[in-house]
Amino acid sequence: METPDPALVMQALRAVSATQGFNAFLGIEIIRVETGLVELALALRPDLTQHHGFAHGAVVGALADTSCAWAAASVAGDVVTATYTIQFLAPARGETLRAVATVLKSGRRQVSAEARIHSESPGTPPVLVATAMALITPVGTLP
Amino acid sequence: METPDPALVMQALRAVSATQGFNAFLGIEIIRVETGLVELALALRPDLTQHHGFAHGAVVGALADTSCAWAAASVAGDVVTATYTIQFLAPARGETLRAVATVLKSGRRQVSAEARIHSESPGTPPVLVATAMALITPVGTLP
Amino acid sequence: METPDPALVMQALRAVSATQGFNAFLGIEIIRVETGLVELALALRPDLTQHHGFAHGAVVGALADTSCAWAAASVAGDVVTATYTIQFLAPARGETLRAVATVLKSGRRQVSAEARIHSESPGTPPVLVATAMALITPVGTLP
Amino acid sequence: METPDPALVMQALRAVSATQGFNAFLGIEIIRVETGLVELALALRPDLTQHHGFAHGAVVGALADTSCAWAAASVAGDVVTATYTIQFLAPARGETLRAVATVLKSGRRQVSAEARIHSESPGTPPVLVATAMALITPVGTLP
Repeated sequence: METPDPALVMQALRAVSATQGFNAFLGIEIIRVETGLVELALALRPDLTQHHGFAHGAVVGALADTSCAWAAASVAGDVVTATYTIQFLAPARGETLRAVATVLKSGRRQVSAEARIHSESPGTPPVLVATAMALITPVGTLP
Repeated sequence: METPDPALVMQALRAVSATQGFNAFLGIEIIRVETGLVELALALRPDLTQHHGFAHGAVVGALADTSCAWAAASVAGDVVTATYTIQFLAPARGETLRAVATVLKSGRRQVSAEARIHSESPGTPPVLVATAMALITPVGTLP
Repeated sequence: METPDPALVMQALRAVSATQGFNAFLGIEIIRVETGLVELALALRPDLTQHHGFAHGAVVGALADTSCAWAAASVAGDVVTATYTIQFLAPARGETLRAVATVLKSGRRQVSAEARIHSESPGTPPVLVATAMALITPVGTLP
Repeated sequence: METPDPALVMQALRAVSATQGFNAFLGIEIIRVETGLVELALALRPDLTQHHGFAHGAVVGALADTSCAWAAASVAGDVVTATYTIQFLAPARGETLRAVATVLKSGRRQVSAEARIHSESPGTPPVLVATAMALITPVGTLP
């Protein structure tokens, strides 16, 4: 299939995201969409934390999964995640989580993508809190 | 360290969970705690879905991560997840998601656990929607 | 596609294996093939070890990958491994490594399988040395 | 602990590798060692292939595991691999496989590393055949 136009992909992802109850709750922002790259940001709030006060692993996992899937969508249209692996490298403290996902390989049957997730706080350098890689299955064109 | 009493672990997990903003939002129920085994259930709601109408992958991921971590907690006290891998095997439709996680190996430095997640609907057999395995790091005693 | 006959699958796997230079070197034995299950054994030798004297991780990884792929082949014909995750749970000492892989879910586009690998020594119980899960892509019928 | 001198690490890895029966069989060459980075190369031979004629997945896996572990060793001394995930992205054809592994995060209890593996043939650009990420446990100083 043809590679979709990144601007149209961003528009489609925003439309899709608005219909995803869970993403609406999380408040994931789509910062950047290029062919094979997606950047997302998420403002941390008390209802996204676990008992040590950091962002809950599932919130970090959501960013990993979503950023990889959407990076894959930028080259392959509508997709579902087949599998991902995530490593938690540091506590996800800070005001904002930022995920950048890139496509490593795009094939007809599967797309490989990886994500880095940093936490950001004013006045300090970003901290790498997680890394992930995913295999994603193309299932059609974006709605 | 000594293996904690499962009843006390369940009590501690419920107390911990109540202080986790994100778990409170999800509404994860602790159904069963044994030494090395945890069963969780989650009633699906519109705000836990993605654009195909199924439970969002991050919700399934949350169950995978949480059930593995808590199964590890049942043998090792307070823990953090180092890494997990999840495979999505079927759309997470239905009324309830149920996760059962078991500990495969408990060491001083890391605990290995795996989870199976099924979706359940009245009148139909459960469907295996995801499988996961995790490495979890002991960090102390449960609060 | 139709599920292949396990006896024919075992025959095909033995034939295929004989043409695999690397499997011939390793000396992997096919112990059992059922629909969705494969059991392999490998006699440990000095040239399969690493510097701590245990079986090299890649040897354990070979058993994990091969047993999962062949379990998938028993339901789906010729296959290639898309991804696997392996956890090393104990040093792979002993005389024999034994891998049992089972299929969790078989779909048209991917097969999910998992493996447990034990080391065995005379007079002592088997030791779980590794666990793995894999996603495997069907690519046609077995040669 | 102090970060080891890369030249001494390379010397130690070569010494260690020479005592590893399996690495000697594979013929893995240590091309480059820096603090947090290791590059390995492997000449492909018929006895390293599978039935499609490509490098056997376990050979690619061995490069992934070994390069990640040795990158970790370059910052953390003697290590064992706790877990790795590998994705196979293209058939490993060609004359040489080359793995470059880098450390993402080095902690007291675990080191995160990732590897890219390319196949190389004269007159054609390298092909990305696999990507991997690993968690590695420090266990002491290099022998």
